[in-house]
Parts: sequence; C-alpha cells; structure tokens
Amino acid sequence: MTTEEKVGQLIQPFGWQAYDHRDGKIELTDSFKEQVKRGGVGALYGTLRADPWTGVTLETGLSPAEGADAVNEIQRYAIENSRLGIPLLIGEECSHGHMAIGGTVYPVPLVIGSSWNVDLYREMCRAVAKETRAQGGAVTYSPVLDVVRDPRWGRTEECFGEDPYLIGEMAVAAVEGMQGQSLASEDSVAVTLKHYVGYGSSEGGRNAGPVHMGWRELLEVDLHPFRKAVEAGAASIMPAYNEIDGVPCTVNKKLLDDILVGEWGFDGMIITDCGAIDMLAAGHDIAEDGQEAAARSLEAGIDMEMSGEMFGKHLLNAAAAGKLNLEALDRAARRVLTLKFRLGLFEQPYGNARLAGELIGSEEHRKLARQLAAEGAVLLKNEGAALPLSADDCGVIAVIGPNADNGYNQLGDYTSPQPAGRVATVLAGLQARFADEPGRVLYAPGCRIRGEDREGFPFALETAAKADTIVMVVGGSSARDFGEGTIDLRTGASLVTGDSWNDMDCGEGIDRLSLRLSGVQLELIQEIHKLGKKLIVVYVNGRPIAEPWIDERADAILEAWYPGQEGGHAIADLLFGDANPSGRLTISIPKHVGQLPVFYNGKRSRGKRYLEADSRPQYPFGFGLSYTEYRYDNLKVSTGVIGTDGEATVTVDVTNAGERAGSEVVQLYISDRASAYTRPERELKGFRKIELAPGETKTVAFRVGAAELEYVGENYERVVEPGAFRILVGGSSVETLEAELLVEKEAGR
Amino acid sequence: MTTEEKVGQLIQPFGWQAYDHRDGKIELTDSFKEQVKRGGVGALYGTLRADPWTGVTLETGLSPAEGADAVNEIQRYAIENSRLGIPLLIGEECSHGHMAIGGTVYPVPLVIGSSWNVDLYREMCRAVAKETRAQGGAVTYSPVLDVVRDPRWGRTEECFGEDPYLIGEMAVAAVEGMQGQSLASEDSVAVTLKHYVGYGSSEGGRNAGPVHMGWRELLEVDLHPFRKAVEAGAASIMPAYNEIDGVPCTVNKKLLDDILVGEWGFDGMIITDCGAIDMLAAGHDIAEDGQEAAARSLEAGIDMEMSGEMFGKHLLNAAAAGKLNLEALDRAARRVLTLKFRLGLFEQPYGNARLAGELIGSEEHRKLARQLAAEGAVLLKNEGAALPLSADDCGVIAVIGPNADNGYNQLGDYTSPQPAGRVATVLAGLQARFADEPGRVLYAPGCRIRGEDREGFPFALETAAKADTIVMVVGGSSARDFGEGTIDLRTGASLVTGDSWNDMDCGEGIDRLSLRLSGVQLELIQEIHKLGKKLIVVYVNGRPIAEPWIDERADAILEAWYPGQEGGHAIADLLFGDANPSGRLTISIPKHVGQLPVFYNGKRSRGKRYLEADSRPQYPFGFGLSYTEYRYDNLKVSTGVIGTDGEATVTVDVTNAGERAGSEVVQLYISDRASAYTRPERELKGFRKIELAPGETKTVAFRVGAAELEYVGENYERVVEPGAFRILVGGSSVETLEAELLVEKEAGR
Repeated sequence: MTTEEKVGQLIQPFGWQAYDHRDGKIELTDSFKEQVKRGGVGALYGTLRADPWTGVTLETGLSPAEGADAVNEIQRYAIENSRLGIPLLIGEECSHGHMAIGGTVYPVPLVIGSSWNVDLYREMCRAVAKETRAQGGAVTYSPVLDVVRDPRWGRTEECFGEDPYLIGEMAVAAVEGMQGQSLASEDSVAVTLKHYVGYGSSEGGRNAGPVHMGWRELLEVDLHPFRKAVEAGAASIMPAYNEIDGVPCTVNKKLLDDILVGEWGFDGMIITDCGAIDMLAAGHDIAEDGQEAAARSLEAGIDMEMSGEMFGKHLLNAAAAGKLNLEALDRAARRVLTLKFRLGLFEQPYGNARLAGELIGSEEHRKLARQLAAEGAVLLKNEGAALPLSADDCGVIAVIGPNADNGYNQLGDYTSPQPAGRVATVLAGLQARFADEPGRVLYAPGCRIRGEDREGFPFALETAAKADTIVMVVGGSSARDFGEGTIDLRTGASLVTGDSWNDMDCGEGIDRLSLRLSGVQLELIQEIHKLGKKLIVVYVNGRPIAEPWIDERADAILEAWYPGQEGGHAIADLLFGDANPSGRLTISIPKHVGQLPVFYNGKRSRGKRYLEADSRPQYPFGFGLSYTEYRYDNLKVSTGVIGTDGEATVTVDVTNAGERAGSEVVQLYISDRASAYTRPERELKGFRKIELAPGETKTVAFRVGAAELEYVGENYERVVEPGAFRILVGGSSVETLEAELLVEKEAGR
Repeated sequence: MTTEEKVGQLIQPFGWQAYDHRDGKIELTDSFKEQVKRGGVGALYGTLRADPWTGVTLETGLSPAEGADAVNEIQRYAIENSRLGIPLLIGEECSHGHMAIGGTVYPVPLVIGSSWNVDLYREMCRAVAKETRAQGGAVTYSPVLDVVRDPRWGRTEECFGEDPYLIGEMAVAAVEGMQGQSLASEDSVAVTLKHYVGYGSSEGGRNAGPVHMGWRELLEVDLHPFRKAVEAGAASIMPAYNEIDGVPCTVNKKLLDDILVGEWGFDGMIITDCGAIDMLAAGHDIAEDGQEAAARSLEAGIDMEMSGEMFGKHLLNAAAAGKLNLEALDRAARRVLTLKFRLGLFEQPYGNARLAGELIGSEEHRKLARQLAAEGAVLLKNEGAALPLSADDCGVIAVIGPNADNGYNQLGDYTSPQPAGRVATVLAGLQARFADEPGRVLYAPGCRIRGEDREGFPFALETAAKADTIVMVVGGSSARDFGEGTIDLRTGASLVTGDSWNDMDCGEGIDRLSLRLSGVQLELIQEIHKLGKKLIVVYVNGRPIAEPWIDERADAILEAWYPGQEGGHAIADLLFGDANPSGRLTISIPKHVGQLPVFYNGKRSRGKRYLEADSRPQYPFGFGLSYTEYRYDNLKVSTGVIGTDGEATVTVDVTNAGERAGSEVVQLYISDRASAYTRPERELKGFRKIELAPGETKTVAFRVGAAELEYVGENYERVVEPGAFRILVGGSSVETLEAELLVEKEAGR
C-alpha cells in the first residue's frame, strides 16, 4: 500500500456528502468518486443520518430499503473503483436505534439504565444491529459509557447513569448484543466504546470541559465500564474530547496505549471524536497546528478521525515534511483493515434491502422499545396511591403540557425525523386506550418548553377545568430544529415530528446552570394545581429535574426520561397499571443545582449538609416506587469469613407483599469498613431484576468475591484487602438490610 | 528522654483548659499540673482564645496584660515542674489578628487579598506577631493558603482568593512579617502554613470534602503558594482534613515527606488540623482505630496533633503494643524541640505584659486595620458616578440593613468578642463624619441576615423615606453566638459585639448551596428601591454574592467583605471619596451558583456557555472600579526573543487620566500559545499596586523569566517550553494590552 492509500484508510468523510438524492434516484458525488479512485477513503460517517446537521429531512431522506440500496451502491463503487478494492467501513450512530429515517427509536440510554434490565438491553442491541447491518452499517458510535457526575451536562440522557458497575454491566450487554457471536455475522455491528474517558465529569458540567480527577478515581470509576467492555471483546473505542489533568484524551498515550492495549489487551481500532484533531491545535492548544496535532495523535494511538478529512490532509503533509511516524501509520492502517476483516467486509460488504424493509421499525422491535420505555420509567412519588388510574374512576383526563403530544421531543438527541404516526406520544397512548370514547381524553399544550409565552394558559386551564384527572407532561427537549412549524398553544394543534430549535434545553452542547423546568412550565403547573384536581406529573426529559414545589404538591410523579417512539403507550400502560413501574434511578436527583455533585457513591468525608439543606439528593440512586410492595428478609452470607481470593454467596428473600405483580430490582452494595485508601460510602456490586407475583417470594443469590471486593490500592493496583465489609442488600441505595463479611489474609499471602 | 516525654512533646491540649479565671485570679487546673509533671505536655492550643467553642466570653476573658501574665504563669509552671524543664509551645489563632480579647481585628484574608498590597500585609503580620508574642504566643495557625475554587465553601473568607500566584506572594509576606528577621526575636511568631493541600477545591464546596484533582494541577495550582512560603522559611505546616484521590492529607507521605521535606527542603514541624487523627479512623476510615491512625500519621510525617490529647494516648498505646515506629517518634520530638530552640524559647519563654498592654489594639495597629479595609474593598458598580458621596449634596443618609451596625458580623470568623466601642460599624463610621449634625445619619436594621422576619421592614421604609441617600449594608455573618441578645428590628436598637448563632450563613462549617443573599435581605432592598432614591449597596460578607437584581438596579455596589474592627471608618472614607477604591477581586463572582466553578484561570477548553447564560462570571478576577480612570499605554517587551533560561523586561505606562488621586493594581498575565500539556487561558504572573496623582504617568516594569514562564510538563517537572507567549498587562484579567514574547530553545538544551 502506498502512504496515500494507508492514510486513506484512516479517513472517514461524511457519508451524506457521498451522494445526492434527487427524483428518487441516488447519484454519487464527483468528489467522492475522485477520492475513492486515489485510494483516499477508508470509511464513511453517517451515510443515512438525517438531521439538521446533515440537512437531510424526511422529504429528502431515504426509506429503509432505499437506504440499504444507496449504501450498497456507494460500497460497490468504492470496491470496484479503488486500486485495492478495500470495502468501506460504514459507521453509523445507533445509541438507541439506528439514526436513519424509519429506524426504530428506542428510549435513550438513561431509560435503559433505569430499567436495570441488562437482558432486555442486550436484546435491543441485537435488534439495532440487525437494522443497521441490513442497511450496510458495520460500526456504531455507541455505547456511551460515561459516568455522569454532573447532570448540568446536556449529554446526561445519552448515558446509563452515575454508577460504574451498572454501566459496566450495560457495556458488556452492548458488546454482546451489537457484536453478536461473531462480528462477521450478517447481523453484527462493531461497537465503539465512548467517550474514553472522564467525559461525564467535566468541569461545571460543561460539554468537553477539563476533567479534574486523580488517577485512582479514574481507574476505579470511569475506566471500569471500558475495561469490562474491552474484556467482552469490544472492537472499537473513541477517546473523549476532554483533557484530564492537562492531557487531552486524544493524545493520552498512557490511556490509549499503556492501559487500553498494554494492560487490557485491546485489539480493535481507535477513532477520535468529531473534530477532535483540530481541537488539539485550537482549543486545547497542545499543538502548533493541525499537522502537529495529527502526527501527535497518530503516535499516541489514534487510528482514524471520525467524520472528517483533515486528519488525512495533515498526515499527508506531515509525511511530505518527513514528520510522520511511518510505524504508527502502519499500525493505524493495520488496525482499520483488521476490523474490516473481522467484520467480514471483504467477503460480504453489502446490506440487504429486502431485510431492511422488513426489519426496520418492525412490530417486534417496536414492542421491545415499548417494554424498555415501561421498564425504565421511574415512579418518584405516589401520594395516596394516586396511581394507577382506573378507567372506571378517573373520569375525563386532561393531558396538558408541551411534551404531551410532541412526538419528536420524546425521542431525545441522536435521532432522525420519523414519519407521521411513527411516534406514540402520551396523548396518543391515552387516546388509544379510550379509542371508543371521544371526549374522554382532552389535550392542551399550555406552553412551550422554553420561553415566556403564556398565551396557551387560558386554553390549558379551560381544558383542565373540564377534566377530573390531570396528567401534566412537562420536561425538556433535545429535539433539534427540523423547521416543521410550531405548536399552536391556543388550540393545541400539535406536531408529530419536530419542534423548533429554540425549545431545546437538553442534548449535546446544551448544558444548563439550573436543573429547574425551563420556561413557564412550573407556572403552568401551579396555575392548574389551583383547580384542586388530581395532578399527575409525567416528566419527559433528559436530565434530573429539581423542582421542590412539584415534589411537594403533585399527587404522583413519573419520570419517563425520553422514552422513545413507543413512549406514549408505555406511559399509558404505567398510568393505568397495565405495567407496574419497575424503573429505578441510576442517577441521583438533587434538590437544587447548588448541591452538585450528589452521586451516591461518594467518599464518607464528603459532608452532610449545606446551610440551606442537607447534601442528600431529593431522590436517591436505586430509588423507584411500584404499585406493590417488596419485603426483604433473611439476608445471609454463606460464610462469615473468606480469604482474599475466596468467595461467599449472599442470599436474600424478596417477597411481593402487595396485590399486584411486579418486577423488583434487588440491589447489592458493598461497604468496606476500613482500608488503606479511602472508599466510597457504598458501592453497587450486583443487581437482579426479578418478577414477582403477588405473595410470591424468591431467594436471590449474589456471588461476592474478588471482583466485588477489590479496589485500587497501593501502587494503583487492584487488591482485595483483609478486613470487615458491610454487605447491604435492598430496593434502593438507602434502604438496605445489612450483614457482615470478614476477609482474612490467607496463609502465604 | 523517655518515650512518654517524647510523646508529651507531640501533645497540644486546649490552653483555655489549663487554667481557671476566677475573681480576677488565674488558677492552673490540677489536670494540667499533673500532665506537666509526667512530662506530658509539649504545647498548648488557644490559651487566650475566647469564643463560644472555648466558652470564654468578654466577662470571663482576660485583658491583654492579664492574658500575658496568665500565659507566663502557665509557661513558668511547665518549665519549673517538669523533669526536663522544656518550655511549652504556645499556639494561637492569628489569621487576621490574634484571636484574644482586645487583639486588633484586621480585615479577613479575602480583604487582604483584594488589597493586592503585599507590603501592607507584611506590615500587618509584623503587628500581629508583636501582639501575639507579647502575650507569649509563639506559633500561629496561619496563613491560610488555600486556593478557593468553590465559593460555596464557608471558609472562603479566610483565604486570599483563587489565584495561586497572588496567594504565593501573600504567603511570602506572611512568613516575612510573622517570623521577622529571626524566629528568636521577641516579636516573632512561627507561621503554620495551612491547609496542605487542596482544601479549597473540596467536592461541592463542602468543608473537608474529598478533592478530585490530578497531580499536575496539584503541583501547579494548590502546591505553589506552599512552595513559595517554604522557600521563604516557614517554620510549621498543617495538612488539610481532606483527602486527595483516596489519600487523606494527614497520612500523605508523598506530600509530607517526598515533596515537602525531600524536594522543598522543609525543616520545620508538621501539625495536624484539630481532630484530624480521629477523623482517619472515623470519617476517612483508613485506619481500624485511633491507635492505628496515630501510628500511621506519625510515620507519614506528622509531628504533633493540634488541640487534642488523643494522639498522645494512641501513641503510648501503640508503644505499649510494640507497634510504634520509634525512629518516627524521635523525628517528631526532634522537630518540635528544634522549633522551640529556633524560637528561642529555651532562652526567653515569656511574654511581656507591659508591652501587651501598650501594643494590643494600639492606635497604630488600628490605623493599619483601617487602611487594609479601605484598600481591600472592591467597587463593583458605580452607575452615573453615584459615588463618591459629597457631604454637601447627599442630604440625609439612611444606613439600612442587618450589617449596618452589627459590630461583630463584620469581623468574620476566627475572632474573639471585643469590648464595646472597639468595632467601628458602617453606621458608626458615617456618624463619626457627621458628629456635629445629629439627624444627618439615620439607621434601621430592617431585617436579620437569615430568617423570614419582616417586622423591621416598616421602620426601615419609614427611615428611608426621611432620607435622600440610602446606604444598604447587607451581606453575611460568620459571627458565632455569644449569647448577647438580638437586634430589635422595630427600633434599630443594635448590638456591638454579637448576634445570635442563627444568623450565621458563612464561616467554617457553614457551606451554602446558593450564593444569593440569605433571608429577606433582597426583599428589603427591593422594597426600599421602590422609594426611587439613590441606592448604594455595601456588602459586608465572606463569599461572593450572586444577586443579578442588585447588579442591575443598585446605583453603586461596594464589596467590603468582612472589613475588621475599623471597617466602618474605612467604608465611610470610601463612600465619601477620602479614600479612592483600589481593591480588586481576587475571586470571580459568578452570576449564579449553577455556573460554578468560574475561577478565571481555567483551561481554554472549559466551555463558553450554558443554555441560560454564558459561563463567564458577573465580575471577573482582577476587576474593581475606582473614582478615577487609569489608562494603559506603550506595552513593551525588552526583547522579542529570549532563550529558555533568558529573561525579558515588560514595561507599560499607566496614567491616572481622571481627576482624583488613586492606586491602581497593574496586573501581568501570561498565556502560552501552545504547549505539550494544556495551559490555563491566562495566568497572573506579576502585579504592582501603584499610587498615581491626577494626570500622573508611571512606567511599571515586570521581569519575565523562567519563574513566570515555566509550568509542570513532562514527568511532572517544571520546564520552560520554547514557543510563543502572549504577555497581557492591564487593570483586570479581562482588560489587557497584549504583546508577544518568543522563547527559543537554547543551543545545547
């Protein structure tokens, strides 16, 4: 291979720029064709991505089958018109569904985390991989494994939560689900773990801000999920934009080489985040120019730049100037080609348009999306058993709020516009239940997510006045502007697929300095509350909401996060008790932004109070109500004493003491009484989601051994230290039974 | 020495418990006498400290001369009744004045920092040392060198600010001022640098919370002032309560031994913070019990425990159990004895009662306190030249607010109660100016600092209605409860020396989750603002206040912080233009608590905005208005290019372009264009406070060489890296002239 061909393999132009779509026909662009001919394209980014960034809309975008055909045409051209005939690596965004028009939109990862259902997520990943590969996509830029420690951050919704153990379990499920038994299967897609690392702890919750963190914490907290995913065989990884203690992750040789490759044995490829190379020279300023930045990144371990062509230009310039490390270039090209071989692209580079047409957005996938949405919604409050509603007693229902019927807002960031009718809003979900009773479900938007516009208040109050039960659907928006109009607040005429950019208060790049509801939403609720009717609040949003007024006065609060395209049905199921809430918080919800950080697994010395309030969150990690009650009994440790490489079994009896079937998330925490280095107050080290019929008791067993007891001790090595451990099992991080386990030094150790 | 005698040297019981004070007579307690006899006392903590913690009040406390006599009596007993006759090390709190009744109370360190007047601070330290040593005190637990990065923290007032360079300069002044030419002088006191280290970056601004920080940042930011002070000869140092990345500072051998002693050559003693040993076993949980904690601390480098006797008990138990490192014990005893020798205590262990009577609270010292208060107040806003007031035009002045006449609130934390008339409040300061015009200055407290009590509003509004000019004095309180009654809000009957505990919203252990004014203070201002009169707001408080309403509507805002006992005179001088504001912020004042952190010297990648506002502070570092205007011209660098160990001279012409004399703080910042590791956007590397007559121009010169250009690079070593540097000089961190300096690699390097 020539140097240009090798460099070409490291390049990933924007896929949507490789072709034009006119009059139902695909036409490859001349610039793409030329680039292919000189061996200058190794991969494409977002070939089917449709959103304001790409400029591709519902009207100009492709149907699932058309999309598969288009990708195949691009791929075929690349293979047949380059000297070496190397297939392209088609990279797509698939964090909660393939980000192409028509792809099933699952709930955002914060919902998935809140479901604590690892098996269901694995199944979802299988489904996403099938949809993606059917359209020719071979690698995804997910899962997002960032440990969220500051919910001001706009990407909170894209993450599983604040706990490294839980994220680690989800990470393994993502690898297993997306990559399947073999990467070369027709229904497998290579994962890209991101963002390596610390990205969820940025300064002030500001996207890509510097990370202030010591090495031990990095190893214990942020690196843990990545290690688990690498051990599970993840094929690709993406360094984060941020720096840690002065070193941008994109050039962090210690992380990219020593830890990832050296210690963990990672054998996949490393791809930067979008624009990360240029950011090194203009932003981080650790290089004089792009050329130096590119050369330094390559040497540090980067194999490919995501969605850009500057990397290649810089590398070729560096080569011309004799400043390119050719060994590093070979390594990068080798890693990219190896992934293509592992994916079987040399044997079968194409998607399957027929399969795409069948699979994408299929009923089976939608059902999965609905189940995840139902399992990931967290019931935060339920005063006087306000929920579930009964169709017989609830009377007329008024569904009010800017997210009650905004089909796009509930999808979260990293989604494409969806055809009309594809998204079930809360209004749609409730209307579907009362399809034969027109007038039973009323609707008013009331206000927008943001802004001071109160002109919808009168109609909302009028609507609420006619109802017996009020369901307020408020929250946030990560929906980018598709230019499809706005809600008419005065009449409730609503949108299915979009709202204006100006309503965004969440999503990538939209960090907040408050955790309160945006705009006049609280005011709307306060006005409606004055009517004195039963008030159910449903949050559809992407980060914790701190609204003490609502916490105090709503009859019930259901935190649905962004529940995806089937969200409205799932929420209706929950509101009416056809589904029993089983979501549990994976992120602590503070009382006030000024309490941050409030993550549950802090050190014991973190302090108990502020002048105005204690430092505990409003709703703790692991918390979530249900329509039944679970009782914990008989917490037992199989043996009171084990050696440092021993193992004990922890069992607990969990009983459904109420009258409805439900699923409980049984959580195991460990707390070291004393150790050479300080430890978190408690740490999640196991969980099981179990179904229980009314009156049923199940015994749940956890293994507790080195993997659960070890921590990063002397010389930054993982170690099991002798001493006493508290074993804590229960239904949340703050309500647990307790037992003790003594670890003794073994003879000869 | 026996083991017990050695351990005895490491013990510092509470000094106020060594004696009783009854009927004008001092009587040593039996327990103290017994302890001395068995060689069990090496030092005493707070022998003259009077506050709610010690239970010593104005009534039960000692006058300056009595205090000196008492300490001498204690010292004499210890020398004459122990086998070895070793003098006690009398340790006192003297951060902004000796914390004994009658000791001059200077402004808090945040004022001192804001004055940028290193010489004046050095002079103050000299004065404090004289007052302290006259009463037998030989070591102080100051200066506080913590770099404040989160103003939620209640101890913000105790620190100089957020910039390591400025703190470093103040640190050196403290060492020079307190320790004088020789520690053995009769007017010298050994400093104790604290809190080593990271204490100003605790999680969530919660006191003693864990610190999340990488090693490079620690070296560059938090360790810098300590290094400067050690190089200046500091004789003692105190590890912080907090942990950093899993290691409590109290047992951090790398910090206490490798860096401090090994790299910096520190040869003084190391004393824990109060209760820090027990905290290791109950809080940090890095030891099974106190005995293990004590033994581990001793080995890590601790020589003495502050204000406690458990350390000694634990060490003796450890010795009995054969678990004490006797070499470490010898080292600790040796370091304590060495300090006593260096202090000349074996020659002259006693204070001087006559001198104490003369010096303490002398007019000269009060004058110094007044000057510091005037130089440290920061004029934040002055719309339409609302200030200075003119006695001819301002008419009747209403001084309103809970801090207008609360003599104790303005002293800050770590102060003893003061005799009536010793504290000049703002009311007193203004009344003194109009002593011959009764009725010219009116007063109403209006409300308390905290709480919802509005019963003072009518009287305040009535008072304001009679006036032409309103001076609102609001803010915070770090005053602990001396049980001396409360303000009568309805009449304005006020207090001189104290207010109730319940008004505290600042000070050690009082961390806040909001930066807004506590209680109903804003509401009071809003009510008074409705009268439409000229509204001057004076903040008397201990941490940044974020109140956008006031920023927008007040005619002028003067941030006085806690200005000490002469504060009222200093503020009156400023309000009437007898002093020209020359204080500049050493801590960035945010718009909202949700923006934190906002320190100015962050990395370039920290992000520019939140959804609701940009991420910049309301008032930036280095900012402060004056009654004149300063113009900067002719920024020059003596040479455009230097070698890595070269040096350039930067000059700038500063002109007083207005009509009043004033002092300007000329600030030099440096910004590295590109470097191997990321750098702050800009960093203070020099400043001069200069006086300028109207129309006068002075040329200010700064040296820029290795000390200014170096940073912590490869292998965590300080290095000057070749490349281009921006040289920025101006009157604040955001308004600067710019020049460039190129650093080239020298031959052979």
